[in-house]
Amino acid sequence: MTEDSVPDIVISRLPWYLQTLNQMARQGLHTVSSSMLAERLGTTAAQIRKDLSYFGGFGKQGTGYSIYYLIEQLQKILNLDRVWQVAVVGAGDLGRALTHYQGFAARGIEIVLLFDVDLKVIGSQVGSVVVQDVAQLEEAIREKGIKIAILTVPAQAAQETAERLVDAGVKAILNYAPITLMLPESVRVQHIDPVLHLQRMMYYLGEDN
Amino acid sequence: MTEDSVPDIVISRLPWYLQTLNQMARQGLHTVSSSMLAERLGTTAAQIRKDLSYFGGFGKQGTGYSIYYLIEQLQKILNLDRVWQVAVVGAGDLGRALTHYQGFAARGIEIVLLFDVDLKVIGSQVGSVVVQDVAQLEEAIREKGIKIAILTVPAQAAQETAERLVDAGVKAILNYAPITLMLPESVRVQHIDPVLHLQRMMYYLGEDN
Repeated sequence: MTEDSVPDIVISRLPWYLQTLNQMARQGLHTVSSSMLAERLGTTAAQIRKDLSYFGGFGKQGTGYSIYYLIEQLQKILNLDRVWQVAVVGAGDLGRALTHYQGFAARGIEIVLLFDVDLKVIGSQVGSVVVQDVAQLEEAIREKGIKIAILTVPAQAAQETAERLVDAGVKAILNYAPITLMLPESVRVQHIDPVLHLQRMMYYLGEDN
Repeated sequence: MTEDSVPDIVISRLPWYLQTLNQMARQGLHTVSSSMLAERLGTTAAQIRKDLSYFGGFGKQGTGYSIYYLIEQLQKILNLDRVWQVAVVGAGDLGRALTHYQGFAARGIEIVLLFDVDLKVIGSQVGSVVVQDVAQLEEAIREKGIKIAILTVPAQAAQETAERLVDAGVKAILNYAPITLMLPESVRVQHIDPVLHLQRMMYYLGEDN
């Protein structure tokens, strides 16, 4: 079975399993059954077993999974057994918050470049990086061979900036701008918009308000 | 067909359709076919037609959808035909960035409360709100009848804070803390963690690096 045959929806759940397993490991647990993991995640044991079966299983019937082994395997599958360097474009509130975010380093993500268009911000220090002029974006990204970028520019600048990132060799973009980017299919895009998440929940709130 | 029978995965796609339709409206378009919308969204026309059929359709065969009508209907379905007041707990970088975020007001979301535990921050102004002591959380939330909260506290404080929000009447939590919350099933939780999104993309990057 090749990696291409794993549905993306399965891949999308693996980081979530990994996070919960890490949480269990920190709580001192060593093994976990698929039903116990399912309860934590609000999903079903069958779903978890089916998802993991794409990668060969990892558990013996009846004895559950070794949490450490499962963490190690999921990290390998997701290519987390290395440090990934990431560029952030847009040094506004959100870009700065992300660059400061302590949760990245602990999970193998290093913000090494931060760009902005504002002359008042360029040259200032944010965490361990210095804000660079977005005019240098292509050169700096090519020089470091960066494949992943986080986009926190205003909506009207997002499409053009994303195209420049792709030209410079970026293959994956985490987009915080509230627009749908149009990019070549070879580029992976994930979109984070708190409004979309809130709206999804508002559907349910309307019923009893 | 009752609302309960619409799968949550369908609901999760409606805000995304709405966002893209708003984008098309701003670009001056008036009608759209399901295949044109599908192309923008990187999904299939069949998926879109099936999703919309849960709510009665909205389009005539062959003529496509009226963008404005579809926007209006989706807003009604998602209960966006009102302003929702939201509380933010945690006035760190991220909590402040969210409270400042211009994209909320334009989409019917108003941040009216912001809490923190840090005495140096309590009493300071962030956008149009003043940071309150988290000790006042229950009282302030009950007084305003707030149903939706955004959680941007550190991981170790997240579970306890979430439980306090639920006690105060909150029914939906957008959780930015990197842990899986355990809450009653009646409470809707959405989890935003940039690391999970990045890890999902890293799976694909590993293949050609």
